[in-house]
Amino acid sequence: MTLQRLGELGLIRRIRARAQRDAGAGVLKGIGDDTAVLALSPGASLLATTDLLVEDVHFRRATAAPADIGWKAIMVNVSDIAAMGGEPRYALIGLAVPGSTPAEDIEAFYDGMHAAASVHGVSIVGGDTSSTPHGWCIDVTLLGEHAGVPRLRSAARPGDTVAVTGSLGRSAAGLAVLEGGAAAVPAEVARELAQAHLRPCARVAEGRWLGRAPGVHAMMDVSDGVATDLAHICRESSVGARVRLADLPVAAATRAAADALGGDADRWAAAGGEDYELLVTCAPGEVAALVRGLRDATGTALTAIGEIEAGPVDVRWIGRDGGPVAFHAGYEHFHGTGRPGAGGTAA
Amino acid sequence: MTLQRLGELGLIRRIRARAQRDAGAGVLKGIGDDTAVLALSPGASLLATTDLLVEDVHFRRATAAPADIGWKAIMVNVSDIAAMGGEPRYALIGLAVPGSTPAEDIEAFYDGMHAAASVHGVSIVGGDTSSTPHGWCIDVTLLGEHAGVPRLRSAARPGDTVAVTGSLGRSAAGLAVLEGGAAAVPAEVARELAQAHLRPCARVAEGRWLGRAPGVHAMMDVSDGVATDLAHICRESSVGARVRLADLPVAAATRAAADALGGDADRWAAAGGEDYELLVTCAPGEVAALVRGLRDATGTALTAIGEIEAGPVDVRWIGRDGGPVAFHAGYEHFHGTGRPGAGGTAA
Repeated sequence: MTLQRLGELGLIRRIRARAQRDAGAGVLKGIGDDTAVLALSPGASLLATTDLLVEDVHFRRATAAPADIGWKAIMVNVSDIAAMGGEPRYALIGLAVPGSTPAEDIEAFYDGMHAAASVHGVSIVGGDTSSTPHGWCIDVTLLGEHAGVPRLRSAARPGDTVAVTGSLGRSAAGLAVLEGGAAAVPAEVARELAQAHLRPCARVAEGRWLGRAPGVHAMMDVSDGVATDLAHICRESSVGARVRLADLPVAAATRAAADALGGDADRWAAAGGEDYELLVTCAPGEVAALVRGLRDATGTALTAIGEIEAGPVDVRWIGRDGGPVAFHAGYEHFHGTGRPGAGGTAA
Repeated sequence: MTLQRLGELGLIRRIRARAQRDAGAGVLKGIGDDTAVLALSPGASLLATTDLLVEDVHFRRATAAPADIGWKAIMVNVSDIAAMGGEPRYALIGLAVPGSTPAEDIEAFYDGMHAAASVHGVSIVGGDTSSTPHGWCIDVTLLGEHAGVPRLRSAARPGDTVAVTGSLGRSAAGLAVLEGGAAAVPAEVARELAQAHLRPCARVAEGRWLGRAPGVHAMMDVSDGVATDLAHICRESSVGARVRLADLPVAAATRAAADALGGDADRWAAAGGEDYELLVTCAPGEVAALVRGLRDATGTALTAIGEIEAGPVDVRWIGRDGGPVAFHAGYEHFHGTGRPGAGGTAA
């Protein structure tokens, strides 16, 4: 059945039934009134972020199923909350789709959103739906809370070590696999990388732990690629940075895909984006303790990749041969270069 | 200069500078980090609502200037907070526009948003921007707070009087004027009605007062037209309603435009939508006191238009001749009937 036949009220009824079933504590009033009414923990600050996903800009229907799009729409926002060291709580969904869209696609999209939300205890509490003459346009706003002091992009200091959680480049490798490279790599590699691209996992537990750990200064999530995102930290902190390409943590599957597909694993890792790892700067003497502590608390690796420097706001990349490497920074909307990370650069 | 030339970072710099200048108390961190960090009043509940505005669905560039679109994008959301009896505080803006858009249009759009926001003490604290291959898609999320008990749609009781603030039908009349009828009506009538359509004013003070007044039960804002919006109250409260067309408050300018343009002022008032007045139900014995009290406190009229009834969930309309009148309910997206109010039906 198309949305045209189901109608907006029919659609909202279905959306609402599911949201009510999944609503967690704190939802005093969810979907169905002029606004949602929500509780926060006493004394906590409110965190708020919004991210757009536009068809044929952030995703293509050919390579991403509706449930994948829904998952990602939630997770990229959860990642922003994680990057503050906060707790994700509530989501509001703006969804504009053509009337010819099958209602099953929208239900699958909501399935994906609820799946991602439930991983992190997020309740979907409101939204708005609209027809559009064009492609899908999705805007998710995520509300969270922080009982302490959030970790800002502006807190990096000269001398800090730059470190990153997990593994970089898997999402870009996954996209290459999805866009025609699947046959060239082993099935389990293709599966792992496609999953990394379509179903990223926000580092909420890692953000919570790093956000409280002594010695951590700046923190943000890697949505547009380290090349772009570390430049944001430098700009906000008025510092420079130096990063060694050889030190970027790159998974074996990513290297295997690069070899098979003629890709550049280093470039995927530095500038591919959409990995949703956490990028931190910390006091250099604390790195070893942070690496051990994060591993023990969450099972996730933390890898030092460079240093913050006094001096011009700029990220200098050092190649495997010791010489300089230039990345044109990650995706900038409107210029139409690179590939967009779905993470917002303006909160 | 087009956005293509300015680039996303250039655009965000401009957006951010203005938002910082206008930021009110409570904005601990605005645009420029992974999330905004915000304060709420101790003990207050958080209110959250989101509304989409899609080009050629909610507005046409031919009849609405960018600053008008910006004003409305904020105000329709503020109206939802008003309808809970709450205080609007913070806005996040999702904006997808083509790269060919002049940067001046986007700045004018933000001018309009800031103008509307400043009327109600709202700070713009975050957002996301994206290119799109198609028309404008705007999603505004508004966060507010409520120190007491919000007024819900589900609180109407049989026997309640149904009443509405201000005047109905002016927005529909204004659209008729804008879509080619301006020459047929006096200039001051055209100006008043076009203003009502393009620059609606949310009833925040009225919502605050009515939200605290004894005897007020259900409350919501009139975004899709009384015919549709009262049906929402009936459905949420499991009650019916009876409304007398002759009792709807209709401004002289609206009647003048209807006469001149061959429109139906009663239909504009009942089903036109986008008036952003407040619709309340209240104990019948309290109506007179509420009318006086609201007028004294805010200068705004409150007019009784019907009653809530036990029985089937349905709104019965009584025409000027005493007989029944049928309105097909206001806009439903995807069906493509009527005209969309920009107010969300799902929070």
